[in-house]
Amino acid sequence: MGQKLLGSLKNGIVFVLSAPAGTGKTTLVRMLTEEFPSVVESISYTTRKMRPNEIEGRDYHFIGRSEFEKRVRQGDFLEHAEVFGELYGTSKSAVEFQQQAGKHVVLVIDTQGAMQLMGRMDGVFIFLSPPDIQELKRRLSKRKSESPDKIEERLSWAKKEMETSDRYDYQIINDDLETAYAILRAVLIAEEHRTRQRKKLI
Amino acid sequence: MGQKLLGSLKNGIVFVLSAPAGTGKTTLVRMLTEEFPSVVESISYTTRKMRPNEIEGRDYHFIGRSEFEKRVRQGDFLEHAEVFGELYGTSKSAVEFQQQAGKHVVLVIDTQGAMQLMGRMDGVFIFLSPPDIQELKRRLSKRKSESPDKIEERLSWAKKEMETSDRYDYQIINDDLETAYAILRAVLIAEEHRTRQRKKLI
Repeated sequence: MGQKLLGSLKNGIVFVLSAPAGTGKTTLVRMLTEEFPSVVESISYTTRKMRPNEIEGRDYHFIGRSEFEKRVRQGDFLEHAEVFGELYGTSKSAVEFQQQAGKHVVLVIDTQGAMQLMGRMDGVFIFLSPPDIQELKRRLSKRKSESPDKIEERLSWAKKEMETSDRYDYQIINDDLETAYAILRAVLIAEEHRTRQRKKLI
Repeated sequence: MGQKLLGSLKNGIVFVLSAPAGTGKTTLVRMLTEEFPSVVESISYTTRKMRPNEIEGRDYHFIGRSEFEKRVRQGDFLEHAEVFGELYGTSKSAVEFQQQAGKHVVLVIDTQGAMQLMGRMDGVFIFLSPPDIQELKRRLSKRKSESPDKIEERLSWAKKEMETSDRYDYQIINDDLETAYAILRAVLIAEEHRTRQRKKLI
């Protein structure tokens, strides 16, 4: 017997997390996977260039456009979307493999990708917001990897993304990292104990 | 701005908690109200006798049967039920008053009362189970207030109650108090951040 906070289901749950760039999603998801061995992050495929601090297979699987398009045709992706001219996609078989191993899989995907999955896939949808647009601008400006033009482009995209937040199951504002993490963690723990999940997955 | 773990909604949520006697519900709810000023327990009305360790207005409002029946006729109760020959009821106006003050209200009620509310009231339904029937028997036997006959009666009632657990939104097994509390706490925090609650209540 014995009930754990997380990790007692035979099949894991998919958690879809969307957030504008600069909202802290990478940090938050890393905190989750470090605290809970039963939580894994799905590594997306992308055609965009690797940034200096990124690692193949940890941050993304970096592939060429023709390879990406081949995988789209083969139906390998659960969802895929084009953001700022680059393609991003989630491998269907990789997610299912983890779920069947009892892992909860966190998909960090943009709002276009998330909306492709809503209603079509049984997942829990979480939207993470910056406290406000000014704060988001400040955070993005601290990144050395992007030009002021790129930052403006990302900001207006962020505003558009935030308009979709009401379509998600949960909304968390990353105002303070510790609080946002406590809420995100609570959402995962609560969802594991929902009757709906337990009946379907035990 | 600022997002809190709990207590940022204009109107509170009703959490309905059912559990067989001896499951630890009283302790768990006290832990919640002690940690979070925004969580209050609804004090039920009952016709049953006060136990030696109980306090009027903290554990229950103890009233006579004719007074109880008058309140039923006046429509004062959100739900009421008869358990082992005694009446128990939840005051509608007291719950609404707390909700409007932004408090989350925990109703600790039996499965009959909870099922009266399901579908009729917008609440979050949580079922708390003992790890198993043997453990429940052991816990009940430690109470000095009840005879062996009463204990057997409570056990068979507990089995019946546990059959309704799948109708609740969440299921928590109180195997270990700290774990059960962490899950219960997570359910409250997660529910406060559900889009459905935020749209309705902010």
